[in-house]
Parts: sequence; C-alpha cells; structure tokens
Amino acid sequence: MAPGPRTLEFFYDVISPYSWLGFEVLCRYQKLWNIQLKLQPTLLGGVMRESGNEPPGRLPAKARYIKSDITLLKEYFQVPMNFPKNFFQEVVPKGTLSAMRFLTAVSMEQPQMVEKVTRELWMRIWSRDEDVATPQSILEAAEKAGLSAEQAQNFLKKISTAEVKNKLKENTEAACKYGAFGLPTTVVHLDGKTHMLFGSDRMDLLAYLLGEKWMGPVPPALSAKL
Amino acid sequence: MAPGPRTLEFFYDVISPYSWLGFEVLCRYQKLWNIQLKLQPTLLGGVMRESGNEPPGRLPAKARYIKSDITLLKEYFQVPMNFPKNFFQEVVPKGTLSAMRFLTAVSMEQPQMVEKVTRELWMRIWSRDEDVATPQSILEAAEKAGLSAEQAQNFLKKISTAEVKNKLKENTEAACKYGAFGLPTTVVHLDGKTHMLFGSDRMDLLAYLLGEKWMGPVPPALSAKL
Repeated sequence: MAPGPRTLEFFYDVISPYSWLGFEVLCRYQKLWNIQLKLQPTLLGGVMRESGNEPPGRLPAKARYIKSDITLLKEYFQVPMNFPKNFFQEVVPKGTLSAMRFLTAVSMEQPQMVEKVTRELWMRIWSRDEDVATPQSILEAAEKAGLSAEQAQNFLKKISTAEVKNKLKENTEAACKYGAFGLPTTVVHLDGKTHMLFGSDRMDLLAYLLGEKWMGPVPPALSAKL
Repeated sequence: MAPGPRTLEFFYDVISPYSWLGFEVLCRYQKLWNIQLKLQPTLLGGVMRESGNEPPGRLPAKARYIKSDITLLKEYFQVPMNFPKNFFQEVVPKGTLSAMRFLTAVSMEQPQMVEKVTRELWMRIWSRDEDVATPQSILEAAEKAGLSAEQAQNFLKKISTAEVKNKLKENTEAACKYGAFGLPTTVVHLDGKTHMLFGSDRMDLLAYLLGEKWMGPVPPALSAKL
C-alpha cells in the first residue's frame, strides 16, 4: 500500500500536547495545501522504548520549560490547551493505551471520524484535565464527536481484539522505521521521496518542502472562524 | 545591569548547529524588528551538566534525524552548513572551550566584533569541517573576521585569564538561571517580562511576542543579497 503523491502520515498520541498543536495545524492546512492527511494513532511509550528516548519531563528544567512553552504556544496556535494539574505525576502514569486503541479501531472502520474523536480526547486530557483512561471517559468523547452510543460501544469492544492491538503496534513500529524518537512525527511522501519531521515546529519547513505558503499556525482563511 | 526594553540575549556555543541557524535569523531581523541583540558566548557542556541533559547524539535515532534535519534546514535557512564527517566522534570530544573563551574575550572588549568572529568560527566547524580547537585555528578565524593579527593575539592571551574564564562561566550560569537545558537559548526582555525560548524554531513565536512580522528565516529585504 504505497502512499500516493503529497500524502502526509501524522503519527500521534493524545498524551502529547505538541501532537495536538501539529494536528490542528495540519487539519487547518490540509485543503489549502491539497494534501492527503493520514492520521496514524501511535503509542508514544512504544516509540520512546524502541528509540531509547526518555520522557522530557524527566529533566526538571525541561518540564518547567514545556509548561511555559505550552502557555505561549496555545495562544499563538489558538488551541484551547491547559496544562493538567498533575501531568507528569498522574496523567502520564495512567497512560493512553485504551484511548489510542479506541482511535485505532475507529481508524480501521470509520477513518473519517478519527479527526473528531481525537480532538474530543484532547479536549478531555489537555483542555479540561479530565480522565481518558476509563471506558466511560472514552465513550463520552466518542459521543461528543458524533458517534452514536452503539457505534461507540462497538469500537470499545474492539479495543481488546488482536486485530486492533496489532494495528496500533504496527503504526508504532512504522513510526520507528521512519526514524521516530518521539511524537508527533510527520512523514511526507513527496515525488517518491520520504521526509520525516519531528515535533510541531517544522510546519513551515513542511510548507517549504511542499512548495506551499506558510501563513502561520492559523491561516487567515480560518482565523475569522476561530 | 538591567536589560533595556526589547533586549534579546542569545546564549550560544559554536559547537551547536541549531545555534548557528538561530544566530543568522536574529542577525537578519535585528534591524527589522528594532531589537537590541546581545550575543552571549556560553558553554553547551556546562548547560548540559547543570540541567542533567544528555547530548542528542546519544540516541542513534536522534543523531540520524539531526543529520537529515540539518540538511533540510540549511537550504530553507540559507546558511552554508555542512555536517562534519565525524561530528559526534571527533568534533564533540575536542570541544569548543578555547573558542568560546576567545569569543568571551572579544565580547568584553570589542562587542561589535563578536558577530563576525562567531560566524567565522561556525564557517570553520560547521561549514568546512575544520578545527576550532588549536590557537592557530582561532587566530585564522579572528583575522578572517577582520581583527588585526595583534588584536587576535591579544584576545588569545586573555583566554587563560581568570577574568575571561569567569565571564564565560557567568554567562553559562545566567543561561541556566533562565531555565536553559540546551542551546541556543534566547531570552526576551519585554515590558518587564522575561520569556525564554529554546532552539532555533521559536523565531516565529518570538515575532508574535514582539508584535512583529515573521517573514520566514530569510526576510525578503535580505533574500536578494544572499
């Protein structure tokens, strides 16, 4: 399944705030740039283990920086982000395995719904400081995104199937094969070449690679709406 | 010595390629944005030790990424950068202590020359894969930057004085106090507030903070000249 021209694979985990920033920028630009955006649910923990990387929160200076960085970037990107009260101590240990399996299940059957469900999960964890680990939390996000109660229950059942578990593992392995050592990781397939970009701060470089115009994290056509 | 309004302190080490990218962008924008740019020679090794951070080259995936990232960014930023043949194995272990002390000495007596001498040191290490550790290498860079042989010799003598050694330590400690865990670290003093930005990829955010226009790494007024 070779990706077509101007396909972007976006590997992300809803635990990662920088993934949210990158996600919104790509969602805003996908039509403007005529790119095919493929959202790839991935497990950040798996990428970190595989690459030997360590969570940025391990360093006190880095953890402090991320907080102030996010505070500035949320305004600049116009993403309604709020740092959870006990992110490194509580949210990170709970993890996002079920949530990412749920998104994987959605991506396998209703790929057009992945964007909305993903956003609602981010709204929980990274805006309202709510849980995303319990089944109830995931169902609430899914219904808010527009899935029916039945559809949401159906996907929830599937998160314990080998098919869904393996697909999430495959995505995580694919990210690592492209050289990922953290998330988000964006992979650009362009004229037979592949470029891997790490983080949410290479979107201007992405525009340059695509030969498109970078108009900041909130392109003017959209800024009226936000 | 409180910094004035719209003062930018740029903490850097010539070992760091991302410092070079940030440096060129700030040099290009300093007049356009009416900022007072204060170049602060710093020791990356000291910042890493103090913050407990580890060199990015430690992770094979990250080391590979940096190589491809630099290859893309040098074009996009229009900085004549080339990855040294044995950067992690040879250049890093040799270090830049003498070079950074030399720049410190220059900054204490002829601050207006720091930009040019710094650039010539980067041209050696990060463009032509030449040594920056021996006295001869440093003198060559200094003379190429426009210092006389006597001036260069004078600064070279000073690198072993306590005054110069302490000043470099002070700069490094100042960066750490601002929360640095790597270089470049840019500190913006704006209306009595201080913002610390890490890396070369927050220059658009810097423009946003200053209320200025971000026109990419090569602002149009300059692109004709490069």
